[in-house]
Amino acid sequence: MVQRVIEGITILFELLVKFVLSVQKGDSHHDNKEDSYGLSWRLAVETNNVRGWKTVPHKCYKHVEKYMSGGQYELDLKLIVDQIIEYASQISVASDGFDAWILDVDDTCISNISYYKAMRFGCEAFDSSKFKAWIMKGMCPANGAVLGLFNKLIERGFKVFFLTGRDQATHLQITAHNLHTQGFIGYQRLILRSGEDKGKSAVRYKSRIRKELEEEGYRIWGNVGDQWSDLQGECLGKRTFKLPNPMYYIS
Amino acid sequence: MVQRVIEGITILFELLVKFVLSVQKGDSHHDNKEDSYGLSWRLAVETNNVRGWKTVPHKCYKHVEKYMSGGQYELDLKLIVDQIIEYASQISVASDGFDAWILDVDDTCISNISYYKAMRFGCEAFDSSKFKAWIMKGMCPANGAVLGLFNKLIERGFKVFFLTGRDQATHLQITAHNLHTQGFIGYQRLILRSGEDKGKSAVRYKSRIRKELEEEGYRIWGNVGDQWSDLQGECLGKRTFKLPNPMYYIS
Repeated sequence: MVQRVIEGITILFELLVKFVLSVQKGDSHHDNKEDSYGLSWRLAVETNNVRGWKTVPHKCYKHVEKYMSGGQYELDLKLIVDQIIEYASQISVASDGFDAWILDVDDTCISNISYYKAMRFGCEAFDSSKFKAWIMKGMCPANGAVLGLFNKLIERGFKVFFLTGRDQATHLQITAHNLHTQGFIGYQRLILRSGEDKGKSAVRYKSRIRKELEEEGYRIWGNVGDQWSDLQGECLGKRTFKLPNPMYYIS
Repeated sequence: MVQRVIEGITILFELLVKFVLSVQKGDSHHDNKEDSYGLSWRLAVETNNVRGWKTVPHKCYKHVEKYMSGGQYELDLKLIVDQIIEYASQISVASDGFDAWILDVDDTCISNISYYKAMRFGCEAFDSSKFKAWIMKGMCPANGAVLGLFNKLIERGFKVFFLTGRDQATHLQITAHNLHTQGFIGYQRLILRSGEDKGKSAVRYKSRIRKELEEEGYRIWGNVGDQWSDLQGECLGKRTFKLPNPMYYIS
C-alpha cells in the first residue's frame, strides 16, 4: 500500500516538473526570438545602418523596455563615458581657455526616459505638443555618468558648450533651470536653436554652430551625443562619441 | 504511517527544487554579469566609441563566442543586409555603367570566423603569420547574406568593387580564387594593397582608391565593411554600412 502511494506521488511530481519546464521553455523560446530581433534592430540603429525611423517597431517594445529599464542602458552608458574620460585625461589643456567640448542635452546630459516610458519607449508616434509640455516641467533627471564626465571636464579646465535642438524662444529658461537643478554648473554656453536655424536639419544647424565656435578660436576636442546627427557634418571635433538611444531618431 | 511518509517525501522534494533553483540562479547571475559587460563592450566597439583595441577583453570571451557561434551574428548581419538591399532597390541605375558599390572582403564578403574561433574569438593577440597561412588556404566561406546582396547588386547592373587590405603581391590569386569558389562572380575589380600603399592606414589607403574610382567617373552609391576604417576618410560613397565584427580592429 505505502509503496503504491509513493509510486503514485512520484509520477505526479514528475508530470508536474515536466509541465512547468515545458511552459518555461515555450515562453523563453518566444521571448528569445523577440529579444534576438530587438538586439539586431538596436545594433543596426546604434551603428546608423537603420536611418530615418519614425517609431520603434512594435515587436521590439519588450526588448527596448527591458534595455532602458533593466540596467543595461546605464551599463552601456558607463562604459562609453569611461572611454571618454580616458581620452579626455590624455589631453593637455592650454591656458588660453580655448579647449572645448560639445555636449548634446536631451538624452545625453539629461534624460527623457520617464517621458518615453509613457510613450511605450518610442513605439508610439512622436507627439510634439506632449513632448514640449514635458520639457516645460523642467524635470529631466541628469544622466549620472554624463554628469560625472561634465564635472571632470570642468575640473580639467575645458570649456563645455551645450548644443541642443530645443527652441530658443520657448525653452531657453526652462532648459537652463533644468540643467542647473541637475548639477550642470560652470559651463561656458548653452546654445539652443534660434529663428535663423528653424527648419534646418540637426546636422546643418549643429555644424553651423560648431563652425562658429571654431572661428571664435575654440579647439573642439570631443563631441558627445545620443544622435548620429550630433556627430555628422562639419567641424565635428577631434573625436565623437555616440551614446545609446533606441527610443527615437532625429535627422 | 502513510501520511508521515507522504509528508517526508513532500519536504524532500521541496528541498530538492529549492536547491536546483538556487544553483541555477547563482550560475545565471554570474553569466548575466559577464554577458552584460560583453554587451556593453560590443556596443561600444560597434559604435566606434572604443578604438584601437588589440584584443577582445578576456571577460568578454564567452559573450563574443556565444555571439559569433550562437546565431545572433547572422541575425544582425541579415537585418543590416536587408536595409542595404532596400536602399539599393531605390536607386535607378544608369546605362553608362558607372553606378558603383564598394565591398570590403574579409568578414564582409567572406568569413574568418573559423580562424578566429581557434584564436579564442580575438582574445588572443593577432598573429600575422598564422593569419596569412589561413588566408593562403583560400577556404574562407561566404557570408551568406552578403553573397545574396552581391548577387542582387550585379543583377541590378551595379559595378561592384572589392577593396581589401590584403597584400597584392602575395594574396591576389588566392583571394580571387576564394571569392570565385564562394560564388562571387561578375564583379568589376578586385583591389588589393599594392606596394604604393604599404604602411598606410586602412583609412588612407582605401580613401585613395575610392578617390581614383571617382576620378574614373564612378558614382559610389554604397560602401560596406565590417571595420570603421572601411567607412571613414574621403570619397565614402552616398551611404556607408557597418557590418558587425567584435573579433578584431583595423585602424
